[in-house]
Amino acid sequence: MNGSGGRQNDARLPASAPTLRDGLLAAREDRADDPAAVHAFRRLAGAYGTPLYVYDREAIVGRFREFRDAFSPRFAKLKIHYALKANTNLAIVDLLHREGAGAEVVSLGEILTARRAGVAPKDILFTSSSKSPEEIAYAVENGVVLNLDSVDEMALAAARSASSGRTARVSFRINPGVDPHTLHQINTGIAESKFGLHLMNGLALEAYRRALGTPGLAVAGVHCHIGSQITETSGYAETARTMLVFVRELKEKLGLRLEFLDLGGGLGIPYRDGEAGMPAADLAAVLKPIWDAGVAALGYEPELWLEPGRYFVGPAGFLVTRVNSVKATPLKTFLNVDAGFNTLVRPAMYGAWHRARVVGRRGSETTVDVAGDVCETGDILAEGRVLPRAEAGDLVVFLDAGAYGFVMASGYNARPLPAEVLVDDDTATVIRRRGTLDDLFRDQILPGEPT
Amino acid sequence: MNGSGGRQNDARLPASAPTLRDGLLAAREDRADDPAAVHAFRRLAGAYGTPLYVYDREAIVGRFREFRDAFSPRFAKLKIHYALKANTNLAIVDLLHREGAGAEVVSLGEILTARRAGVAPKDILFTSSSKSPEEIAYAVENGVVLNLDSVDEMALAAARSASSGRTARVSFRINPGVDPHTLHQINTGIAESKFGLHLMNGLALEAYRRALGTPGLAVAGVHCHIGSQITETSGYAETARTMLVFVRELKEKLGLRLEFLDLGGGLGIPYRDGEAGMPAADLAAVLKPIWDAGVAALGYEPELWLEPGRYFVGPAGFLVTRVNSVKATPLKTFLNVDAGFNTLVRPAMYGAWHRARVVGRRGSETTVDVAGDVCETGDILAEGRVLPRAEAGDLVVFLDAGAYGFVMASGYNARPLPAEVLVDDDTATVIRRRGTLDDLFRDQILPGEPT
Repeated sequence: MNGSGGRQNDARLPASAPTLRDGLLAAREDRADDPAAVHAFRRLAGAYGTPLYVYDREAIVGRFREFRDAFSPRFAKLKIHYALKANTNLAIVDLLHREGAGAEVVSLGEILTARRAGVAPKDILFTSSSKSPEEIAYAVENGVVLNLDSVDEMALAAARSASSGRTARVSFRINPGVDPHTLHQINTGIAESKFGLHLMNGLALEAYRRALGTPGLAVAGVHCHIGSQITETSGYAETARTMLVFVRELKEKLGLRLEFLDLGGGLGIPYRDGEAGMPAADLAAVLKPIWDAGVAALGYEPELWLEPGRYFVGPAGFLVTRVNSVKATPLKTFLNVDAGFNTLVRPAMYGAWHRARVVGRRGSETTVDVAGDVCETGDILAEGRVLPRAEAGDLVVFLDAGAYGFVMASGYNARPLPAEVLVDDDTATVIRRRGTLDDLFRDQILPGEPT
Repeated sequence: MNGSGGRQNDARLPASAPTLRDGLLAAREDRADDPAAVHAFRRLAGAYGTPLYVYDREAIVGRFREFRDAFSPRFAKLKIHYALKANTNLAIVDLLHREGAGAEVVSLGEILTARRAGVAPKDILFTSSSKSPEEIAYAVENGVVLNLDSVDEMALAAARSASSGRTARVSFRINPGVDPHTLHQINTGIAESKFGLHLMNGLALEAYRRALGTPGLAVAGVHCHIGSQITETSGYAETARTMLVFVRELKEKLGLRLEFLDLGGGLGIPYRDGEAGMPAADLAAVLKPIWDAGVAALGYEPELWLEPGRYFVGPAGFLVTRVNSVKATPLKTFLNVDAGFNTLVRPAMYGAWHRARVVGRRGSETTVDVAGDVCETGDILAEGRVLPRAEAGDLVVFLDAGAYGFVMASGYNARPLPAEVLVDDDTATVIRRRGTLDDLFRDQILPGEPT
């Protein structure tokens, strides 16, 4: 490992040797044949093996600050929660917490991750449509904010509060019935979704009325989240207006003054060249007049909570794979790599597009399918891509793999889980050890074997 | 745990108390309100927690024997390989190996699993479209049959053979260009698939010609596999004819006499009431005259290899979940259970249907979505089902979860992996320990922490 001690912190200086980060950036910019990229990815693959998840520390921090700087000048009472489900690696949660992020979590495992990273329970919002009794008990007893999804859950929280003598800080997730025009599977705010209490028929209002009359519950806020990978501000604007009207209704009908209004996350990122995603500044500019008008009508200003996940970590991640073989068939040419949908499920599951770069090659362009190593026809990581001609042993890198990458990986086909590495300038740090073949057997018990 | 020592081995005797297996069978037969089912699933969930994979030992053995008994009287030289990818649990591989099955594997992890279960290397066929150099090395050096997918792989095998001084026993996977009319993602024999060498343009023949001229390779057989969850015999029949013609071509043009012809697996099972799947006897009856005619024309009889996976284990598996909460919305009612697509991905990934049973309830039928606990709208395990009315705490059991169930599970949303249990009459044995919350952190390293 080369030391980075003597280097300045500006990769744009005419440095003597390019850093690892220079290589990551070159690959992002479609210069994977640049010596910096070749050096960086060969060094990472050589040291840590493939398939390998690599995250760019500076990119994560940069995305967080860009988001914060877009919102904080416009919204006086802002809290940013990182949605851990995008990437639950402790080092990444720790990094974002040091930048000032709270945590939006969906399970006890994520609560414990946030706590290990030092997030205070009051800054952890626990959202899930299906919380177990154990998860509710933990949240109540440890002061985690419980974002209730149903009246059933409210009853469980109240019972736990009574038995533990703790007051549960709660909010309700609202289903605003808004379509953000993203993929159906991740479209959480539509009326038929499993998430939240409907405004329709007064259901959400009635839940708040009951919560206010239930001992042991402290009603702290209201939450919504309309989906993931959203690239249009219109659904967000409509949701903000709807939610601010509801918050006013809560004040006028129930005399309720909320600590926070959480408008969710779901900001999209560009996965293809030429796409824009949803820049934080665009969203902040659209929300600002709606918020100001809503707050003026409301007569008080709740905290604005926002909870991006993918936005912070998606673009910072790379999946590094190695070509096992190349096969030309009468119909297609396949680059067979050493990762599959066990490693990165998004292409197979959602039809998602990740840009693929062949390290150290240029020219001789050819149309290929980058095929995964899972024994299913649907395991194609990148279909019909025009790429430089590659050979067995070459590295192929997938961009924007920082969100919903490792966290969705499985051991399918009895393959160990990949490692995760965090790159800081010219330093790489393993933040998750590679799984081993022995791991496959660690929890298995053959009947009759001594245990 | 109740002892089973005093019981006879026939569940159909008028026993004093029903066994665990009686309960599993009752649930399969849509009598999940039967006291046997209630007793069995409460006992299993109570002892091992939920979500829980449960496998019926007798059902696995029964399916294997039914298959063997359909084929072995008709085909003189039959070898049955269990396709481990359906369920790689060591106890299950061991069980099928004791019944006489060899192993069809797709990775080094699966090779090692087969070997731990005692399968001899010569009875392990290693098939994958993307084998790593390490996997090829292991196969060559340990006498595992290497089912080559490309000319690139042949070169790697030959090089490894030369460096290790071992002869590699090889076959080629052939792409026969047959559409078995199953789901596209698992339709492996069509021409555009990533699998195999095409017969088209003489590519497969040319590969055999080169293999015969390559030192260190012993050409042992030929393989094809046209897909998974196949329910029509016609694609199989067409494939068998095509492959037998090719084997004759190998003899006539190259003087090659093969040890085996592997026609793959992929036999479908019924997932819905009233479906037939593809009974082994139907397939054996269809293949018999084709085989006999082909062998007569060929002038010798190679071994017939077959490699079912799902067929043996799918119907034997149950996923036991618990209802966390019930939520009625203006559009739908959701049973929110404590498993999601992290536990059973088939419904979310393939739109697959698994029958769901509510344990201990009858009547008061209602249409519900059984919703998973993953924070995605697409995480619905069973959509629009008419089921008895359930409450928080009830158990919901999914049938036919023995194949592509646990093996595809992930830790998404930071949830530990479920346990697996094997039921034999009235005895339950843990064959994989439940994952723990501590497991989530086992391989993680927070930078700056002592390691």
